[in-house]
Amino acid sequence: MHERGIDVLLLTTEADIRWFTGFLTAFWQSPTRPWYLLVPAGGKPVAVIPSIGEPCMRRTWIDDVRVWPSPAPLDDGVTLLVDGLVEFAGHAARIGVPMGCGTHLRMPLSDHSRLQAALAGFTWIDAMPLLSALRAIKSPAEIDKIRHVCAAAGRAFAQVPELLRPGMSDVEAFRAFRIACLQAGVDQVDYLVGAAGEGGYGDIISPPSGRALTTGDVLILDTGCSYDGHFCDFDRNWAIGQVDTAVEDAYRIAWQATEAGLAAARPGATCGDLFEAMQAVMAPHAVSSSGDVGRLGHGLGTQLTEPPSIVSGERTELAPGMVMTLEPGYAFAPGRWMVHEENIVITADGCELLSVRAPGTLPRIG
Amino acid sequence: MHERGIDVLLLTTEADIRWFTGFLTAFWQSPTRPWYLLVPAGGKPVAVIPSIGEPCMRRTWIDDVRVWPSPAPLDDGVTLLVDGLVEFAGHAARIGVPMGCGTHLRMPLSDHSRLQAALAGFTWIDAMPLLSALRAIKSPAEIDKIRHVCAAAGRAFAQVPELLRPGMSDVEAFRAFRIACLQAGVDQVDYLVGAAGEGGYGDIISPPSGRALTTGDVLILDTGCSYDGHFCDFDRNWAIGQVDTAVEDAYRIAWQATEAGLAAARPGATCGDLFEAMQAVMAPHAVSSSGDVGRLGHGLGTQLTEPPSIVSGERTELAPGMVMTLEPGYAFAPGRWMVHEENIVITADGCELLSVRAPGTLPRIG
Repeated sequence: MHERGIDVLLLTTEADIRWFTGFLTAFWQSPTRPWYLLVPAGGKPVAVIPSIGEPCMRRTWIDDVRVWPSPAPLDDGVTLLVDGLVEFAGHAARIGVPMGCGTHLRMPLSDHSRLQAALAGFTWIDAMPLLSALRAIKSPAEIDKIRHVCAAAGRAFAQVPELLRPGMSDVEAFRAFRIACLQAGVDQVDYLVGAAGEGGYGDIISPPSGRALTTGDVLILDTGCSYDGHFCDFDRNWAIGQVDTAVEDAYRIAWQATEAGLAAARPGATCGDLFEAMQAVMAPHAVSSSGDVGRLGHGLGTQLTEPPSIVSGERTELAPGMVMTLEPGYAFAPGRWMVHEENIVITADGCELLSVRAPGTLPRIG
Repeated sequence: MHERGIDVLLLTTEADIRWFTGFLTAFWQSPTRPWYLLVPAGGKPVAVIPSIGEPCMRRTWIDDVRVWPSPAPLDDGVTLLVDGLVEFAGHAARIGVPMGCGTHLRMPLSDHSRLQAALAGFTWIDAMPLLSALRAIKSPAEIDKIRHVCAAAGRAFAQVPELLRPGMSDVEAFRAFRIACLQAGVDQVDYLVGAAGEGGYGDIISPPSGRALTTGDVLILDTGCSYDGHFCDFDRNWAIGQVDTAVEDAYRIAWQATEAGLAAARPGATCGDLFEAMQAVMAPHAVSSSGDVGRLGHGLGTQLTEPPSIVSGERTELAPGMVMTLEPGYAFAPGRWMVHEENIVITADGCELLSVRAPGTLPRIG
């Protein structure tokens, strides 16, 4: 913070506040109340939160917890926030707030305007680069939690050929997989998307449609489960019965692209290097550029997706402790995609898989 | 929009965009990409979204879908957004953006600054009152979805005495309940909080701690499950074996407070009236004001919690089609809370329960 000229950080989102405090609650699901954390350049962070969260916050390492009964439309914590910022940083402070790509301010715009008016002498600085750099390197305890949830999701994926069958609707398939994840030991199935289509899929973010799994389909399930607030994020593909050889070929190519990514993932390599390594395997076979998906992986931790992105030209260097997804995907025919994904942690001299490696050839259901 | 002097709405959050489009995806879990919807005063809404979402958005009723390959840190949709706003509303438009309590702008602050600089002639208007009023009245189709998910969660709650037992850890209890909800037919268990404590609980938003359920505990589980993007939000309490009579009394009083709320819930009554009706039952028995929780219920729909809040003095009038939670809670001893919750829809002459009414006396496990 000193190097970047920041006197105090103002944080508003679940992931940032949890990273500094350990404050873990499903209550963020409700949009009603704002939650704030002030991180001064010296001393412990200070929570400025709705009183309903006080007992939960008091169980963290935070000592200074300032509360108000929210929702309070006339002053939903703004006065407490202004007082805290002035107390920690004076009337001409430099406040760090995440402003860059992938961030947002979880605070009503009207309250943001009030804050800016009350703190007219303040300078606002983008804290996103600082926070991204801090959060990218995971502690051994964080890596253990991610390893745990990867292993649990892996056990659920391994059961899929027994759980699903041709003729079952994709709604039923999703439900069976969610239950398998919970039974395998995840806390929550925060994220599950997938698709099944004859000879391939063209959309990997939709919910299930009610369509039955049909012989000739390719099925993909992509899940972000969490354990103690830490995520896995990987996918698996299956053939429903016999499929086109084009699909089997595409599967092998995406698998080989992941191999290339695994080989390239080591300290000092850049995210751009990882992108090029995977893209070089897929590009000769792709019908369009991979620009549609936009990236071939990303950071992973207390959020399903974190910086950095594995995109062309990205200069962020890999370093030991970074947890990343490798997510090579490409269109092998118009509207037909093949997407693979694994989770890794960067080690002193390479990387370690956190997910159990997908099989080298497309597995079959039914 | 005409009445409120708004030329075009700019929407950025999952709930607002889904309400206007039907765009349903778990992909919002990833914070990386922004998503935008423009709603002109005439004509259909226009989506300005990352290309990865195009197939999913094209299956909705939206025709005009403008995409870019995101993440693109140098211009993550801002140019497309500026062009769209100018196209629909000219260079001196009045843009409606939700700004009030319970809202936020899901857009990087740096992009918000770029937008304001590019649209210096625009006027920004708080669209929250308009959106709240629109979204508060549910269609019969929406009410059916909420009824469906309430019924499913109700079946899961009914199984709790068979699923749980003294000595089971609260982590196991949460997991068993999540699985029961999925088996009962919900799509997702988006929200689950709870607490168990000897003679009462003092914190209702924490995750399970690993502590075993113990004879003498009161257990509360509060869940927001969803079905086709629509939520239930209600809770249930149980005694683990024999508990204090003070707990049983508190349960009956909270149950009676809900009865008072049910009797008061009719078109024309205000949210403040509902608050007073429930509070009048609890106040004589409470050791502190209910200011700590802040409200005794709220709207419910495509979000777990929606406006209006059931708070003292709130003048929003109930109207047919509004779906609400009644959530009376009070401290019957220091640090010991009793919280009940039911879901209702306002009808022509009163209200209809969407959740199966909790029993009048505290049920027991073990």
